[in-house]
Amino acid sequence: MAECPDSSYPPPLTLTQEQFLLSTIKDWTIQNGLAVRPSPTWIPEAVDQKAVLATNAPVTIFPSPFPKPCFDEARAMQDVYNELYAAIASNEEWLGNIMEELIDVDDFISSLWKVHQAVKQEGYVQPLSLGLFRSDYMIHAPPGSAGPSLKQVEFNTISSSFGGLSSLVASMHTELLSSPPGCPMTYPSHPFLDGKRPPQNPAVETLSAGLAAAHAAYGPSKPKPPLPLCILFVVQEKERNIFDQLALSRRLISVHKIPVFRVVTSEVLERTSIPSGNPSRPLIYLPSHSPSTLWEVTTVYLRSFYAPTDYKSQRDWDARTHLERSAAINCPTILSQLSGCKKIQQVLAEPAGPDHLSRFLSNRDSAIIARLRDTFAPQHDLSPVGRGRELALNPETAAYHVLKPQREGGGNNIYRSSIPTFLRSMSDTEWKRWVLMELIQSPAAARNTVLRSDGQVLSGHVIGELGIFGTILWNRDGTILHNKEGGWLMRTKGRESDEGGVAAGFSSLDSIILY
Amino acid sequence: MAECPDSSYPPPLTLTQEQFLLSTIKDWTIQNGLAVRPSPTWIPEAVDQKAVLATNAPVTIFPSPFPKPCFDEARAMQDVYNELYAAIASNEEWLGNIMEELIDVDDFISSLWKVHQAVKQEGYVQPLSLGLFRSDYMIHAPPGSAGPSLKQVEFNTISSSFGGLSSLVASMHTELLSSPPGCPMTYPSHPFLDGKRPPQNPAVETLSAGLAAAHAAYGPSKPKPPLPLCILFVVQEKERNIFDQLALSRRLISVHKIPVFRVVTSEVLERTSIPSGNPSRPLIYLPSHSPSTLWEVTTVYLRSFYAPTDYKSQRDWDARTHLERSAAINCPTILSQLSGCKKIQQVLAEPAGPDHLSRFLSNRDSAIIARLRDTFAPQHDLSPVGRGRELALNPETAAYHVLKPQREGGGNNIYRSSIPTFLRSMSDTEWKRWVLMELIQSPAAARNTVLRSDGQVLSGHVIGELGIFGTILWNRDGTILHNKEGGWLMRTKGRESDEGGVAAGFSSLDSIILY
Repeated sequence: MAECPDSSYPPPLTLTQEQFLLSTIKDWTIQNGLAVRPSPTWIPEAVDQKAVLATNAPVTIFPSPFPKPCFDEARAMQDVYNELYAAIASNEEWLGNIMEELIDVDDFISSLWKVHQAVKQEGYVQPLSLGLFRSDYMIHAPPGSAGPSLKQVEFNTISSSFGGLSSLVASMHTELLSSPPGCPMTYPSHPFLDGKRPPQNPAVETLSAGLAAAHAAYGPSKPKPPLPLCILFVVQEKERNIFDQLALSRRLISVHKIPVFRVVTSEVLERTSIPSGNPSRPLIYLPSHSPSTLWEVTTVYLRSFYAPTDYKSQRDWDARTHLERSAAINCPTILSQLSGCKKIQQVLAEPAGPDHLSRFLSNRDSAIIARLRDTFAPQHDLSPVGRGRELALNPETAAYHVLKPQREGGGNNIYRSSIPTFLRSMSDTEWKRWVLMELIQSPAAARNTVLRSDGQVLSGHVIGELGIFGTILWNRDGTILHNKEGGWLMRTKGRESDEGGVAAGFSSLDSIILY
Repeated sequence: MAECPDSSYPPPLTLTQEQFLLSTIKDWTIQNGLAVRPSPTWIPEAVDQKAVLATNAPVTIFPSPFPKPCFDEARAMQDVYNELYAAIASNEEWLGNIMEELIDVDDFISSLWKVHQAVKQEGYVQPLSLGLFRSDYMIHAPPGSAGPSLKQVEFNTISSSFGGLSSLVASMHTELLSSPPGCPMTYPSHPFLDGKRPPQNPAVETLSAGLAAAHAAYGPSKPKPPLPLCILFVVQEKERNIFDQLALSRRLISVHKIPVFRVVTSEVLERTSIPSGNPSRPLIYLPSHSPSTLWEVTTVYLRSFYAPTDYKSQRDWDARTHLERSAAINCPTILSQLSGCKKIQQVLAEPAGPDHLSRFLSNRDSAIIARLRDTFAPQHDLSPVGRGRELALNPETAAYHVLKPQREGGGNNIYRSSIPTFLRSMSDTEWKRWVLMELIQSPAAARNTVLRSDGQVLSGHVIGELGIFGTILWNRDGTILHNKEGGWLMRTKGRESDEGGVAAGFSSLDSIILY
């Protein structure tokens, strides 16, 4: 492994150099669709009444250093992780036991579980599930450690985003590094950058191929006469991150020749139906713009329905139930979504107790399982018996921890000294909603400069988070039809900020240079 | 030739269909860089202080019908037109005689001519000229005519724009026509659209290949030790149409591996120099963002300096002179720019008098020359001897004419009944600045719907203007090194508007379906 770049990285920029880089990036992002719709807090709807304006996605000026052994290990583990989570989602009994503990304290998990129970009661008609997963890691390098290691931050089983834009950031940094051709000088010369390129980032290819595999596995149309087949993206209204999603549909359409439609959450019940007379329950889509053509949905790709705010009324829960009970392959199913909750990660990481990993990965040898286990950060529940309560309530140990809710989507973490007070503000019966995780200590020297979507430029110390994309298509009988790793996401945020989420403007899309 | 589509084209849209198409187009344009920066009259600088916002270029929802024989003929004539204008720009004496008539009435032409004279006095060091030309046509179909014919509106010899965005519009309409794959229904079914696609539009490839040919023909670096070679785009400040230009530089960089830099008009003298001790006068470029590297400019591509407003002070004239006297291949030279003035077109089209075409195209056979001549619209000067004065001053005949200034850039035409009053408002010694041209009578039935850059949607009767791109690299001794036709631009404007200019928002980028 090469030397970690020291505090001389990134190279300092003169004002002119920074202006040139920023201006190049502002133009490159728009020319290549590395874009988002502007936030309404910046550009009110009254200004952009027809919703045509766009701006650059938040991006870093420089790619970030990342240790090659950690990158390689994260990639090597992805198909194992895919398999692990497919196995968890297929083991309703095991998953159910954990969910039972949560349903009386977490309304959201409880509601999701009820959707699954209702469909199970009626009987599932689709044995296949599709996962477009992203496993997120940080580099753990506490003072005095032998070298950097990889620690998983979370495993995303629903709406794993930024595959589309992330591969564009890698292309942009690659172009800046090699520009102008033959005599690169867009960045100032620096030993860590000269001659280097980010690794290939086939996120769009991988994620699209996963959706295409599900589409193919669905088989022929179920109604008679047969209908044309399509993939349906279920999306949020006024999605600002739409160009990330369109990167996948563009490839599905142009390369795989698969029709793709988009429907917003609130219109699922209006635009799709399941014919009552057909026991195989095909999901029929009726485009509003071409009411004479019916389509049959092979695969439902959720870029909504992942957070409590996506369910505004019972009608939205009905819509989710409707999709779940249909013959369409759900990406993800309710069980797959639930398998991504923080509690599952904590149970898997639990050093004491049953060896869940070996059980779920019975086909894998123990060395692989040990390597997977090495990527877990220490985490604990807050039950009366474990170590979690003690670590969380003592301010000295709390200082090295983060308290995470079970829910997907981020934005609600409690950090360090805030943990004891926060916990004491509620009844300890509610503590089950939370998982305590040891904070990952990422390298302290890293710096970068960020161009936000409103054009503001920020420089400072940063923390990076690497996501690896993977897709898996499996049958609930345990058969795996497709299992691939491919593509990555680097997100970089200011060190002073403890919470992520690129679309919210707090963190930025980045790429990596391996060392 | 197939039937011209009747008034049933384009097919009517329901409100839902139109909303779906508009929403698809709004997203497609941003995803693919078919974009412009928003007008400051809509988004003031105070709102977008960092200049990051972008919006769709103005585009038509539907491609427009265009007669295939006229399209084929326009393409067939392009390399002949390239050759004609190269020959005109190489014949300084002939050009000079015409310019002499204009310099006492047109300050702009007079100033350009002075630049040429000054450089000629010192002696040109670069015998090569590059033309990136665009010949613009309308369909002429007066009531009672046998069929549509092609009439040239103007021939652009400087800053011929929209090659980059135009090829994207063709891609967008192609994708809409074939979407979803296997079962197209994004447009309502219509006999004129079903199974049809716009013709290939290799504008970016053609224009970039022209610039690359000049770059290669420049030969080795002239200073010792040699410098790395580059192409320099000279551009206007705050260019809203920048993504059109970047389509060319992206291809030059990625395919031809040629370094491209951009410099705004006002910085030409600051950022480039000609070493006083080197008689071959290489043009040296010093990037502000990397002051340690000098570059030698092989080719200057002007996307500025075409209109009087690009010359704000003597310093701008000095800058143009500086480029003209350098060893860089100018695209265009002063003589090439002047050969594009309206007066030249009028002289060429003059039915009486010397046969200029046969003289300039002595290598071409008379049938080709006759076909070229057929593309001329009748036009006249306003000299006391010709028919022009009579046609212009009589309101009845003026009603079929347009009065055009000599200058490039558009925006100053006088139409129909306004012509007599306009002319009488000035001394007849100034009439030399103008050319009277018979209005082309385009098919009346054409309709389309336009999405403007601010999101407003307009529908109505439209007029289309087809541009054909061509590039030619020639030596002033008459040798032609590169002569290619390739790529096209369809611009569509509302019939009620008499003046064009897509960037100004009055007209839109379109594509064509041949019939």
